[in-house]
Amino acid sequence: MGAAVADLIVQKYGGTSLADADRTRAVARRVVDTAASGDSVCVVASAMGDTTDDLLRLAAEVSPAPHPRELDMLLTAGERISIALLSMAIRDLGREAISFTGSQAGIVTDTSHGRALIVDIRSTRVLEALEAGKIAIVAGFQGVSSELEVTTLGRGGSDTTAVALAAALGAQVCEIYTDVEGVFTADPRLVPEARKLHAVSHEEMLELAASGAKVLQVRSVEVARNHGVKLHVRSTFSAADGTWIREEDERMLEKALISGVTHTLEETLYRVDGTTPARLFAALAAAGVNVDTIVRTGPEIVFSAPADDREAASQVLDGLSVEWSARDDLGKVSVIGAGMKSHPGVAAKAFETLADADIEPAVVTTSPIKIACHVRSDEVDKAVAVLHRAFELDAPEAERQHA
Amino acid sequence: MGAAVADLIVQKYGGTSLADADRTRAVARRVVDTAASGDSVCVVASAMGDTTDDLLRLAAEVSPAPHPRELDMLLTAGERISIALLSMAIRDLGREAISFTGSQAGIVTDTSHGRALIVDIRSTRVLEALEAGKIAIVAGFQGVSSELEVTTLGRGGSDTTAVALAAALGAQVCEIYTDVEGVFTADPRLVPEARKLHAVSHEEMLELAASGAKVLQVRSVEVARNHGVKLHVRSTFSAADGTWIREEDERMLEKALISGVTHTLEETLYRVDGTTPARLFAALAAAGVNVDTIVRTGPEIVFSAPADDREAASQVLDGLSVEWSARDDLGKVSVIGAGMKSHPGVAAKAFETLADADIEPAVVTTSPIKIACHVRSDEVDKAVAVLHRAFELDAPEAERQHA
Repeated sequence: MGAAVADLIVQKYGGTSLADADRTRAVARRVVDTAASGDSVCVVASAMGDTTDDLLRLAAEVSPAPHPRELDMLLTAGERISIALLSMAIRDLGREAISFTGSQAGIVTDTSHGRALIVDIRSTRVLEALEAGKIAIVAGFQGVSSELEVTTLGRGGSDTTAVALAAALGAQVCEIYTDVEGVFTADPRLVPEARKLHAVSHEEMLELAASGAKVLQVRSVEVARNHGVKLHVRSTFSAADGTWIREEDERMLEKALISGVTHTLEETLYRVDGTTPARLFAALAAAGVNVDTIVRTGPEIVFSAPADDREAASQVLDGLSVEWSARDDLGKVSVIGAGMKSHPGVAAKAFETLADADIEPAVVTTSPIKIACHVRSDEVDKAVAVLHRAFELDAPEAERQHA
Repeated sequence: MGAAVADLIVQKYGGTSLADADRTRAVARRVVDTAASGDSVCVVASAMGDTTDDLLRLAAEVSPAPHPRELDMLLTAGERISIALLSMAIRDLGREAISFTGSQAGIVTDTSHGRALIVDIRSTRVLEALEAGKIAIVAGFQGVSSELEVTTLGRGGSDTTAVALAAALGAQVCEIYTDVEGVFTADPRLVPEARKLHAVSHEEMLELAASGAKVLQVRSVEVARNHGVKLHVRSTFSAADGTWIREEDERMLEKALISGVTHTLEETLYRVDGTTPARLFAALAAAGVNVDTIVRTGPEIVFSAPADDREAASQVLDGLSVEWSARDDLGKVSVIGAGMKSHPGVAAKAFETLADADIEPAVVTTSPIKIACHVRSDEVDKAVAVLHRAFELDAPEAERQHA
C-alpha cells in the first residue's frame, strides 16, 4: 500500500480522549513525549467527545431521512475540528505538526456512504510530512471515494483508519488509546474481579470484539490480522501497559486456556422455515441486517441479529413469504480462548457451569476458539459471573490452568 | 473564469439565516421556490449562527496563538455543516441538491491563510451539477490554495465567494440574503427615519461598505464592480425587494444626490513625522494594519485605522523611529452619493450642517462620491442625524432634490 517509514508508531485517540481543550492538550503532550524518543509518530484522531452524536441530532432535526452523501459531508466536520485543534496544541509544545483530512491522507474508499470500505491508501502527503520530521495528524473515520466524494467508514471507523495506516506505512505498532485500561476478561461493570489481559492473539480479539467487547471495532482487528499489525490497546489517562494484540507465535504457546467471557444483553433470535439460506441471507444483507449467529440442523434456519435490526429483519422476512418467529428476550454469553482449540473439555465445563446455575441456553454455537450461548437477557449477568469464576479468570494469569 | 449557465441565480445566505434547523428548512423552501420558476440556482452558505465564533473560542482554549493553517482547517468545518444540512433539507422538498466544499467547487486561492485571495474559479463540478438540473450548494468563506491547502477568505468572505461564483458562472444576479431588508440611508438604530434604498451603483456601495455599512463585505463589492455582477441585497425573512446594486447606467441618470450617511464609532487618527509615505505604509501593510484614510498637506502624514489595529500600528510606528501621536476619541461620519459628482455644493452643505450642530471635524477627506469627516466619537450619533435630515434622506426618494 505504501513505503515504510523507519521506527514509526501510529497512535489512535478516541473521542473521550479529546473531549475538550484540556484533554486535547494532554494528548498533545503524550504525542510529543512519544516523538521525543526518536520515533516517527502518525496520529489518528476521532471527533471530540459527543460531536458526532450532536451532528447526527442536528441532521435529524433538519431531515427525517438525511441523504447519505450529505450526512457524510456533515459528519466529517467532526474530525476536521479535532485534528486542527490537536495539531495546534502540538505546535505549541515546539514540534512541527500538520493535520490531514481523510481525503488529504489518501484514505481511498468505495462509494458506500456511511459504511465505506477502504480500498487503498495513497499516503504520499503523510509520508512526506513524516520524512520531514513532522508529526502527522490524520482524521479518522473518513475517506474519499474513487468518485471524489467524501465518505465515512461507519461507527468506530477511526480504529480501522489507524490500523490501515499502520499497515500501509509499516508501523512497528498501532496504539489504540481509549478510556479503559485494555481488554478485560469480562466487563468489569458485571464482574468486579475481571482482570486486564496482557496479550491476546488477533483471532481471540476478533472473537472478543465480535461477541461484545466494545474496546475495538471488529473490522480494525480483521485488518490488523490480515496485515500482521501489532496493536496495543491502552488508556489515554495512564502510562501503564494495556493489552497487546499480536500474532500467535512460539512465545504464546503457553497461552491461557480461556482469555475472557463476553456478552451482549439483547439479541433477537429468529426461526425461519420455507426458504433457502442463500435467499434468506442475501435478502437480510441487502437490508443491512447484521446477522450474528447462524445455526441449522434441519429444514428450519435459526439466526440471531442485534435488537437494533429487529424492524429491518421483520420487513425482510414478511417480504419473503416464509413462516417465521422471533424471540426478543435473549442475550448472549461467550467464552473465548485460543487455548481451547486443543481442549475438548471446555464446552462441557461451560454447559455444566450454566446448568449448575439453573441457566438453560436457548441456542449454542461454537468456533475453534469460542463457545457462545444464547440465554435469557435477565440471566446474562449471572451467566457471565459463573463462567468467569469457573474458568478462574479472576486469578492471576500465571496461576491459571494452562493449555 | 468558466462557462456560463443560462438563467442562473446565485443566492448567498448568511449565518443568521441558517442559525438552526427551522431556519435551514425555511431557506431550503426559498431556494426550491426560486428554482421552481425555471432558473438554475447556485447557493453559497455561511456557517450556521455563531459556529465560527464558537470554533474560534475553542481554538483560543487550546492554543494562545493558533497556527494559521490549522485554524483554517478548523474554521472550514463550519460551512461543511451548513451546506450538508441545507442540501438535505432541499432534497426533502423533492429537488436534487448537492453540496460542495470550497475545494470541491474549485475556489482556488493564494496561500495566505486566514485572508486568502481568490485567484481562480475552476467550477467544473458545480457546472456539471447545474447542467444536470441540480441545485448546487457551495461552502462560502473557504477555498483551496495552489499547494492544496485549505484556506479561508477572512470575515465576511462568503459574500466574496458568492460574487466570484456569480461572475465565473455568468449569473444574471447574485442575491445576498441577510437579516436586514437592504441598504439604508443610515443605520436605523441611530436614525429611526432611515429609509431603504431601492438601488445604488457599485461605486456608491463600495463607499458605503468601506465607511461603515456592514451589510456587505467591501471586497465582494469590488469583485462585483470589476466583473459587472448585479447584486440584490435582501432579507431572508421577507419576500420584499431589497436594494439593487448595479452599474450606473442611463436609467440611473436621475439619481439621488445623496444615497446615505454612514458612520464608524471608533477610528484611531495618527500623525506621523520623519518618514516617507512609501516606507510608512509598506510597514503598516506588512503588519496587517487596515489603513483607512490618508491625508497629507505638508511634511506630516495623517492617517486613520480601525481601533482594533491600535496595538499593531503602535508597534510599527515605534519600530520606525519616527515622531508620532495618536487620537483615540474619534469616529467618522460619511455622506455618500453618486449624484454629488456634479454638485460642488454638497461639501459646503455638509460642513454648514455640522457647524450648526456645533460639531467641528478633526479631519476631512473626500472622494468624487463621498465626504468623510472625523468627529468626536460621542458626537457621531448627532452628526449622522443632522446630516441625514439636511439631505432629506427621510423623505421618499421621488420627493428629494435630484442631481
